[in-house]
Amino acid sequence: MTYCLGIITRSGLVLAADSRTNAGVDYISTYRKLFDFSLPGERVIILCSSGNLSITQAAISSLKKDIKVQQDVNLHNLPTFYDIARYIGDKTRQIVEQDRTWLEKDGIDYNCNFLLGGQIQGEEPELYLIYTQGNSIQATPETPFLQIGETKYGKPILDRTVTFETSVEVAAKAAILSIDSTMKSNISVGPPINLVMYETDSLAIAHHLELPLRDPYLAKLRKTWEVALNDAVESIPNIDWEYYAQEEKNDFPLD
Amino acid sequence: MTYCLGIITRSGLVLAADSRTNAGVDYISTYRKLFDFSLPGERVIILCSSGNLSITQAAISSLKKDIKVQQDVNLHNLPTFYDIARYIGDKTRQIVEQDRTWLEKDGIDYNCNFLLGGQIQGEEPELYLIYTQGNSIQATPETPFLQIGETKYGKPILDRTVTFETSVEVAAKAAILSIDSTMKSNISVGPPINLVMYETDSLAIAHHLELPLRDPYLAKLRKTWEVALNDAVESIPNIDWEYYAQEEKNDFPLD
Repeated sequence: MTYCLGIITRSGLVLAADSRTNAGVDYISTYRKLFDFSLPGERVIILCSSGNLSITQAAISSLKKDIKVQQDVNLHNLPTFYDIARYIGDKTRQIVEQDRTWLEKDGIDYNCNFLLGGQIQGEEPELYLIYTQGNSIQATPETPFLQIGETKYGKPILDRTVTFETSVEVAAKAAILSIDSTMKSNISVGPPINLVMYETDSLAIAHHLELPLRDPYLAKLRKTWEVALNDAVESIPNIDWEYYAQEEKNDFPLD
Repeated sequence: MTYCLGIITRSGLVLAADSRTNAGVDYISTYRKLFDFSLPGERVIILCSSGNLSITQAAISSLKKDIKVQQDVNLHNLPTFYDIARYIGDKTRQIVEQDRTWLEKDGIDYNCNFLLGGQIQGEEPELYLIYTQGNSIQATPETPFLQIGETKYGKPILDRTVTFETSVEVAAKAAILSIDSTMKSNISVGPPINLVMYETDSLAIAHHLELPLRDPYLAKLRKTWEVALNDAVESIPNIDWEYYAQEEKNDFPLD
């Protein structure tokens, strides 16, 4: 499995990904799932991938090749992020079509998803989720984060701490906590964590990091979080059983 | 969907359940999923159910009937909780067998799960998860909670705040927070929340409650939790980008 997330806020973007890939529980490997296709000073393009590794690797290779051979259409010359999302979607469709019959025969899941975030000079920053089918959705101020892969464990913390007005520094911490919570519950999501923080209109990736399992900041963040959650549960007043006993009287038959 | 959880600690048991049932997103209903089969002073038996409602209702009815007609084997005369778990498993098998062919024909999911918790006089409190197939697993001090239904959103908070040494009062708050987090992310999990707190060797349910959506305690708990999480994220030191820039130098190609 995999877990990647993207957050868009008024001040910038955060994209983050774990690095674990597995073919069954008895074959675990480490693969980077966060890729930088930026052209510093002109455009920032970050891509995260989840799902069938042969499909996502083929897509990433093809995107790189189109830049290298200066194809008429490539990540460095498309005019808008919507165009880029469509282009990556078309690429995915082509690759899926090429392999799906063979994968389906043996019941192999060929699904894959991408998160695409960044900014083109003169445009606003944008964040997209691109599906296996090639279509895509865009994050908005009302729903400022998107997730792919094993999304459920890490969603409550984003729901409670991230809005469009959150600072990008805080969003980066929330992203690491979200991935760390997921790693604790699903062993098919694992370190190192790759994270990119982008500040609106800077048009270059100034901040990125890779956190291995024993990284001291990751250890500190995890510990602080655990202590804070326990303090929070303790700080909530205990249930006032008397009140509920009064309230419910005899209208609460449990059987 | 549904979300139910059980927690066993040194000082007692907590069982809790949401009340939403849906047949598609366009048919949402409220059904209690927490049932009390206790015989106060002798044995406490709490059951929570998830999955196909026709199957779980049939099982609950049959369990009640066996008590009423004083069947040779029923919830009130079986000597241990393991026997009770097997008996409920057998009941489930019979009902599933009766309907599965007809449900399978139309691709209807007949799966269901039960959480079973309580204590029989002279025995220790126990907590079980019973599967559709009739087999079961038991919670232990190393893994003191069990979940059924939509389990993922509410697991991180339990992972971080509940151990076998947690007081039963704190476990009750963690259970409500776990269900509340799930309700926020999955609309097929909804109020009221039913919760039972049982203190070891009391052999009677002294504490139970039903929290509707607008319950003032639920609102306060949610607010306190949200503020605490935000404070916690703020309190974690920001990422020291300089440190990571030094660490990684040129060995961090993102493309």
